[in-house]
Amino acid sequence: MGEFDLIRRYFQRPVQRAALGVGDDCALLAPAPGMQLAISSDMLVEGRHFFPDVNPRLLGHKALAVNLSDLAASGAKPLAFTLALSLPRADEAWISEFAQGMFALADAHDCELIGGDTTGGPLNICITVFGEVPAGQALLRSGARAGDELWVSGQLGDARLALETLLGHVQPPADLLQQARQRLEAPTPRVALGLALRGIASSALDVSDGLLGDLGHILDLSKVGATVDSRLTTPLIAASAYPSSATWQFDSKLQQLCTLAGGDDYELCFTAPATRHADVLAAGVASSTPVHHIGHIDAQPGLRVLGADGQPMPNDWKSFDHFSS
Amino acid sequence: MGEFDLIRRYFQRPVQRAALGVGDDCALLAPAPGMQLAISSDMLVEGRHFFPDVNPRLLGHKALAVNLSDLAASGAKPLAFTLALSLPRADEAWISEFAQGMFALADAHDCELIGGDTTGGPLNICITVFGEVPAGQALLRSGARAGDELWVSGQLGDARLALETLLGHVQPPADLLQQARQRLEAPTPRVALGLALRGIASSALDVSDGLLGDLGHILDLSKVGATVDSRLTTPLIAASAYPSSATWQFDSKLQQLCTLAGGDDYELCFTAPATRHADVLAAGVASSTPVHHIGHIDAQPGLRVLGADGQPMPNDWKSFDHFSS
Repeated sequence: MGEFDLIRRYFQRPVQRAALGVGDDCALLAPAPGMQLAISSDMLVEGRHFFPDVNPRLLGHKALAVNLSDLAASGAKPLAFTLALSLPRADEAWISEFAQGMFALADAHDCELIGGDTTGGPLNICITVFGEVPAGQALLRSGARAGDELWVSGQLGDARLALETLLGHVQPPADLLQQARQRLEAPTPRVALGLALRGIASSALDVSDGLLGDLGHILDLSKVGATVDSRLTTPLIAASAYPSSATWQFDSKLQQLCTLAGGDDYELCFTAPATRHADVLAAGVASSTPVHHIGHIDAQPGLRVLGADGQPMPNDWKSFDHFSS
Repeated sequence: MGEFDLIRRYFQRPVQRAALGVGDDCALLAPAPGMQLAISSDMLVEGRHFFPDVNPRLLGHKALAVNLSDLAASGAKPLAFTLALSLPRADEAWISEFAQGMFALADAHDCELIGGDTTGGPLNICITVFGEVPAGQALLRSGARAGDELWVSGQLGDARLALETLLGHVQPPADLLQQARQRLEAPTPRVALGLALRGIASSALDVSDGLLGDLGHILDLSKVGATVDSRLTTPLIAASAYPSSATWQFDSKLQQLCTLAGGDDYELCFTAPATRHADVLAAGVASSTPVHHIGHIDAQPGLRVLGADGQPMPNDWKSFDHFSS
């Protein structure tokens, strides 16, 4: 089956919102009046972002999820996406599963495929996603101010625990691994929370390379420092609630690595003025997303991490870098 | 040098038109009132779309050029683009050259980089490009009507001649190869012509997989047929003007292959009512782009090619398919 048949069979669906979808030289899209388009692009490479034997349905989900996560971090409502796909061969069963996983998530967010490209080559998935946000209301990385509270959504570290397990570094119980693996392979983009935080959060980003490393981008662009209390982040890995046994002791250093520098969490890390504490909690409730207060923004530059004793601890975790690592 | 340093050094430049560029979770872009965004995405893979030893400056040019060519085919004015880049290693010299080639073309078209992704992996370049076009005025593939004249811009087949030479299938003289190779490695997107054809052309696309194969997409979507006169297309390869010699005879079958099914031409193929013949010629002059009348659209389905004797000839050229070939 050639490129055009593949596109027609698995990726061409009627568009509802775009003026023109898959099948012409360009797609045509216009945000509503007063809206800006939020645009983000993420590329997933076999062997680096996923294992060669990954379930294609989960991969389809994840490839779109990591892009929707960027829209969430900007407080943008998903509209549409393009898919460029390089495949080693035209494996119809694989493509069909991939498309189903991708479209299930797309449909859940009312986000439609409007164009893209398919080609032969090493497996590589590049999605560019489009959302809309009222002009001037996007959540940026540059808006954190000294005194703001620091928050994170959902869970931290489970994806990294799954990765460490799949790499053979640790051996958690099977049911714990299954739960952690779900977080690695099928992350939940926090779109509803991002929308609920418009007008409340002073800055936001999504945690893809590890909490501390990503938080560093907010600090750089906002020209502030921060203090993170690891006593508030350590419990955010599901494994911390798992009872210890003769065969499973959750090493505390691993737990800190996973929660503070794990990568692949796709949670939102954000700041808000302390006066908006109750509004942040309400946004969490309104979006059915847990939110956790984990520290605060300082005028003093640098990132301080408080250890189990409440005292600053060395921060030598390296952010996960998809290029150099 | 890690991912973020690379981005900062080579790809982060201030944006003029976008509300927000490289460096946050999303870029922010809004078309002017009454405008639609035209969006296209093309992925280039090493070993399939370019040779591993290609000059990185030319590759940077080409990766953006093939995307701008899609905007040209839609009659859209370039605004911005995202770049997702997978690199086997952080070779600064290579990246610097690539960025220079890409930005030189971007600047020539007043088109700015607003976001993207970099990662490690087999060399893969995915650009998504954004242009604007007045609502309802985009050139589509679906508008050709019986009786329309069929046109193509510029030259056909030189890129394929270069490819056949680099693959060792033919041996044209060095100066001819150099000229053909320029067309393969540094194609010119016909943006100005696309803009000039708004309101004149009834349909358009860019020729990337070979004239006849791409024309087939217009015929499919417009539900019409066409007749192409090879006596008008054969001269459109520069090599046809090259004097024969003892060492160089341009085989007529190769010449037909290159011009009718070459691939990588990045010319515009378009249709217009016969009553707009003079307007098409004027659009060519206004945009400093040669335009050639090569046939016509028929009510009868199918694609007919007239040979050197003016009679229909067998059309068994396979369109270049980046997936199956």
